[in-house]
Amino acid sequence: MKRVKVSNNVIRRLPRYLRKLDELTEAGISRISSFELGHQLGFTPSQIRQDFSCFGEFGQQGYGYNVPALRAEIASILGMDRGFQAIMIGVGNIGRALTENFNFKEWGFRLIAAFDVRPEIIGTMFHEVPILSMDMLAQFLRENRVDAAVLTVPKEAAVPVTEMLTANGVEAIWNFTNVELTEPNSSTLVENIHFSDSLLSLSYFIAERSDERAAKAARSEKN
Amino acid sequence: MKRVKVSNNVIRRLPRYLRKLDELTEAGISRISSFELGHQLGFTPSQIRQDFSCFGEFGQQGYGYNVPALRAEIASILGMDRGFQAIMIGVGNIGRALTENFNFKEWGFRLIAAFDVRPEIIGTMFHEVPILSMDMLAQFLRENRVDAAVLTVPKEAAVPVTEMLTANGVEAIWNFTNVELTEPNSSTLVENIHFSDSLLSLSYFIAERSDERAAKAARSEKN
Repeated sequence: MKRVKVSNNVIRRLPRYLRKLDELTEAGISRISSFELGHQLGFTPSQIRQDFSCFGEFGQQGYGYNVPALRAEIASILGMDRGFQAIMIGVGNIGRALTENFNFKEWGFRLIAAFDVRPEIIGTMFHEVPILSMDMLAQFLRENRVDAAVLTVPKEAAVPVTEMLTANGVEAIWNFTNVELTEPNSSTLVENIHFSDSLLSLSYFIAERSDERAAKAARSEKN
Repeated sequence: MKRVKVSNNVIRRLPRYLRKLDELTEAGISRISSFELGHQLGFTPSQIRQDFSCFGEFGQQGYGYNVPALRAEIASILGMDRGFQAIMIGVGNIGRALTENFNFKEWGFRLIAAFDVRPEIIGTMFHEVPILSMDMLAQFLRENRVDAAVLTVPKEAAVPVTEMLTANGVEAIWNFTNVELTEPNSSTLVENIHFSDSLLSLSYFIAERSDERAAKAARSEKN
């Protein structure tokens, strides 16, 4: 695929478009205008047209976007059709919760193995994923293509495990440890799950609503 | 606090500023220019000045930002000093993982109770949080101020539990269920954790790198 450089903000919006298009598909909607799509997502129509124009022409003047075609195109841009293979490091609570509740396949990833240090779970399967010993990791990485590692180890293991992964050729890490894994200029791709960013946004909105109510109450007292 | 309407994008960036300022504090840095802050975050200096100007004047021409003062101001804007109280619904793997690994207090929330339906854990404590029966929820909500509920129930329970929460006055939900909880115009504040958005961004970057390498290889073959 020929690639143009796309801004980080556009890339971050693509998964949201994808989710919205999946919702529309489920609701039986097969085309949508940039106006309506923008309305549903809280973006302006021109922002939407601009975002999609980075990747070529999807829409048709006066007709709108074909939902399945646009969905397929965005999925392909996101690499969901590449058959990426992932491993998970650390089968504690977060690792278990992810394996149980998150459908990697739906998003184009196959979870081919998990690794842990606890003898009592090594050699078992968890939701069709074999749990192997960390001692096997280097060999496993030599023998299998691994596009990404899901890092769900305890905090103190985060950096040493990352060093081991990068030394063995893993170039992308989905990081759940809340630890900064790499230097700014590292060539390893790291995507962090920051729970706090999400909670703090919620916190902002709770505080905002509370202030608005207090202001309203103050105004009505004055009158 | 007097509030100006702030765009959603600015609100979403505030937690990232906060994390960066915490990093700077840990590194012993007490002031920083908008240029340097922008460089470290991948924003332009003017974007940073514009973001902060929504909330008043923080910086000083030629001096830069005072890191602890800016940190305190952003924390306050985010409502981190309000003493918000939260409950958790569902003490399965995700609930456990969150309670163990995520420090609610650090982000201004006190987790005062958790609720579940399984008799074997009801009445126990998990990391200093009492686990109560779902049957106690309505009464608990009458007797305690609850600013937010963390929703970590199985998919099928997501909507009924949300209805019960909103019927009992809970107005903010931190949603881990991957289920759309409310209608677009609902007055309940819902903040979703979308794991897929994060994984798909990583997927994009893996695909991009792979394409760049293929293109490079093709070019060098031609020469």
